[in-house]
Amino acid sequence: MADQAVARLAGINVGAPARPLPSADFGLIGLAVMGQNLILNAADKGYTVCAYNRTTAKVDRFLDNEAKGKSIVGAHSVEEFCSKLKRPRRVMLLVMAGKPVDQFIEALLPHLEEGDIIIDGGNSHFPDSNRRTQDLAQKGIHFVGSGVSGGEEGARHGPSLMPGGHEAAWPHIKDIFQGISAKSDDGEPCCDWVGDQGSGHFIKMVHNGIEYGDMQLICEAYDLLKRGLGLSPKEIGDVFAKWNTGVLDSFLIEITRDVLYYNDNDGTPLVEKILDKAGQKGTGKWTAINALDLGMPVTLIGEAVFSRCLSALKDDRTRASTILGGPTPKFEGDKQAFIDDLEQALYASKIISYAQGFMLIQEAAKEYGWKLNKPSIALMWRGGCIIRSVFLKDITNAYRNNPDLENLLFDDFFNKAIHNAQSGWRNVVSKSALWGVPLPAFSTALSFYDGYRTKDLPANLLQAQRDYFGAHTFRIKPEYANENYPEGKDIHVNWTGRGGDVSASTYIA
Amino acid sequence: MADQAVARLAGINVGAPARPLPSADFGLIGLAVMGQNLILNAADKGYTVCAYNRTTAKVDRFLDNEAKGKSIVGAHSVEEFCSKLKRPRRVMLLVMAGKPVDQFIEALLPHLEEGDIIIDGGNSHFPDSNRRTQDLAQKGIHFVGSGVSGGEEGARHGPSLMPGGHEAAWPHIKDIFQGISAKSDDGEPCCDWVGDQGSGHFIKMVHNGIEYGDMQLICEAYDLLKRGLGLSPKEIGDVFAKWNTGVLDSFLIEITRDVLYYNDNDGTPLVEKILDKAGQKGTGKWTAINALDLGMPVTLIGEAVFSRCLSALKDDRTRASTILGGPTPKFEGDKQAFIDDLEQALYASKIISYAQGFMLIQEAAKEYGWKLNKPSIALMWRGGCIIRSVFLKDITNAYRNNPDLENLLFDDFFNKAIHNAQSGWRNVVSKSALWGVPLPAFSTALSFYDGYRTKDLPANLLQAQRDYFGAHTFRIKPEYANENYPEGKDIHVNWTGRGGDVSASTYIA
Repeated sequence: MADQAVARLAGINVGAPARPLPSADFGLIGLAVMGQNLILNAADKGYTVCAYNRTTAKVDRFLDNEAKGKSIVGAHSVEEFCSKLKRPRRVMLLVMAGKPVDQFIEALLPHLEEGDIIIDGGNSHFPDSNRRTQDLAQKGIHFVGSGVSGGEEGARHGPSLMPGGHEAAWPHIKDIFQGISAKSDDGEPCCDWVGDQGSGHFIKMVHNGIEYGDMQLICEAYDLLKRGLGLSPKEIGDVFAKWNTGVLDSFLIEITRDVLYYNDNDGTPLVEKILDKAGQKGTGKWTAINALDLGMPVTLIGEAVFSRCLSALKDDRTRASTILGGPTPKFEGDKQAFIDDLEQALYASKIISYAQGFMLIQEAAKEYGWKLNKPSIALMWRGGCIIRSVFLKDITNAYRNNPDLENLLFDDFFNKAIHNAQSGWRNVVSKSALWGVPLPAFSTALSFYDGYRTKDLPANLLQAQRDYFGAHTFRIKPEYANENYPEGKDIHVNWTGRGGDVSASTYIA
Repeated sequence: MADQAVARLAGINVGAPARPLPSADFGLIGLAVMGQNLILNAADKGYTVCAYNRTTAKVDRFLDNEAKGKSIVGAHSVEEFCSKLKRPRRVMLLVMAGKPVDQFIEALLPHLEEGDIIIDGGNSHFPDSNRRTQDLAQKGIHFVGSGVSGGEEGARHGPSLMPGGHEAAWPHIKDIFQGISAKSDDGEPCCDWVGDQGSGHFIKMVHNGIEYGDMQLICEAYDLLKRGLGLSPKEIGDVFAKWNTGVLDSFLIEITRDVLYYNDNDGTPLVEKILDKAGQKGTGKWTAINALDLGMPVTLIGEAVFSRCLSALKDDRTRASTILGGPTPKFEGDKQAFIDDLEQALYASKIISYAQGFMLIQEAAKEYGWKLNKPSIALMWRGGCIIRSVFLKDITNAYRNNPDLENLLFDDFFNKAIHNAQSGWRNVVSKSALWGVPLPAFSTALSFYDGYRTKDLPANLLQAQRDYFGAHTFRIKPEYANENYPEGKDIHVNWTGRGGDVSASTYIA
């Protein structure tokens, strides 16, 4: 081999090198729609990408079709794949979350070297990314767990990317990530380093939860326009078209307009023929569960997930519709005024949803010890991803103006917006209760707003009840503290004159 | 030892036996308030109980005080404890859930024999009880995971008991369990075999979730009477006193009346001095998480848990109350009529909460392969426990009339009740939105009812959106099926004329 090397240097043709020189800047494993599109995106930006897939026929098919003529090479084994990558190797996995990720990591390790980088771009659950970051760090491998959003189109032309994990990886992937990511209309890449360990996947999880919330609000609005105001799909499409020019300007509102306008071959709107059983892949559920675990009242996402569950009970609902009655909506008055109220209600509820989402993010940062950059998170969601909108520009500004902002609702812009929206919001929610059109997300947003702005909630009674039946103790309000009821002390009262003075310790009601 | 036994039989006094004969019918470990009270209860019913506690000073204190003169003996070691129990040994643990339970099981095993029974009476998480049932079965030990409800009073005079686990244990514990349990006013024990493995603890978990829901509804009603109608605590107490004579007759309504009437030394209601930060031990949260995992829309318990989370953010709310505004409630009209509407709203919301709870129980039975007895579950909750009420008698009847009842709302009694309650319910929810008094539980109950009774929910739009941005596919409504759109097939449409015909497989939005 040394002779050959010498001969090669001398310009003598001794045939192909025993081992080709690495030529690829980046490698990607997993050639489903997302993987293919990310590769094509990177090639367009001037990167040479190596593609690999466990079923290697897909590699050949890809190279013969979409990848033809582009700076894309293929591999037919993990070993060959790794050998084609320049150092430090940057390997991105776009495979099914769960075991496949761990299996691929195992398969890659023998062919990687210290300082190489593995990026998991699938919808992994963030605790797994915590684990992988730590395990691989011990092996000298820099792991990155990255959220990727934007669907097929986004992956192809500019996804939102949310990378977190081993800090040392960032300088080596920043250029390509920010190169392929979406850009805000100010030209800023919708991609930045999120933080430690699984924080990138955590932010993706919250993004997906918020996506559930945004979609649920849109669906509730559509239902109210249809069954409350009697509008046709085309007319509702017009409403969304108009809304897309205002404060609700966003990808989801835009596609809703398109969906409502889309007619079947027979000229009637296709959407009305679609079965109303919502699918879900689980990430919205993760957000709701995480909120419960961290004790944060992320009620709108909770209702959005539960609404999907209710929609799945189609047979139950069909039966129930013949047994359970309610009012028939009867709209009287100025339709356009009500539609304007609905726009305000949707806007206000959206503000609440995002405020709750950022409350969760803040609590997670505290609980998990991550340093998270809130303006950057809003910017990462600003473009490329499913929830992209003008609204996120306002959120980005809010956190740039005040990185220590306790709650979005305290920002002047959103504070003003939610006050302006109130009368319309309350009108819509109260009417829906009378008309019998369910608005679980709108309603919970309003209940949350009214609860959050209330200094004294009725939980005093709850604490009294818990002390009554379970001796769980309560605390006194500071303004009533005295020697009998010292501030900060857990107090038990003998509410009935019976019962002991023993506080519950083991028994938990 | 044989000589001594022979001598003893002959009536010759040879001193104390080397090993005393077992004298106790039942053994209980864990002498906090619950444990002590269960022992005293059993002793009252004629059982001889052996008490043990890791800190043995508590054993002595108990024997010298509450247990004096009763059929209660003590032990100062696990070995001594086991030696005092008749066969098959019945050992009940009332210790902190989690590791302590496993630790005690480990400590007991060397002193137990095949066929002996261990009952975990703590608030264990049901998957742990699943595990313990299986592990101990392999060792020939019959494990029972039992929910226990009713607080201090309940434990002393008649708790609700919800045992599940190894079936072979039931004949040996039925008498004592049904002996010490609460009785319904028809004299039936509020205790029966729930089912396999962790099903007893599962039912306890759902009980606790429903308890959160019942308490949240009461607190919201109290808040509306106070801030919406301007009633004093005494006047609100009068309302609850009246409600306790009607369809809402229950332990929680009764104690709420008592709490509202309870005055501090200065003659003012103590409840108004209690800090409004709700505590929670976690079981309500478990129910909400389980509902998300099983895909059941248990929205009221979800909102109840989140409301506790919101109440815990006291400092945030205090700050928010100076920044975020809203309407000032102004009641006009017939107060008593509104209070009657509120009673109906509370009743209807409660029906929804229990309907959701039984939906969860049904789904769990399917998912985990348990045979669960629904009339028995309602009966177990009928008395002794925190949620005991006349209402549960109606639920018991509903399931006895029709054990295959798909949903409580389809039962004639509850169907009629919820129709009668509707106008009052809708009035209350719509007013609260206008007045700015948050009713998250009432509202979500109404949204659920309106969603559940709707054959076509707006999830058709959601499915269209998901297919648009992520190629997740939808199905056609059966009435629109044809060759282009076959029924039951996952269909993808090219909504924009762009994009490929590849369905999302790996990428999950």
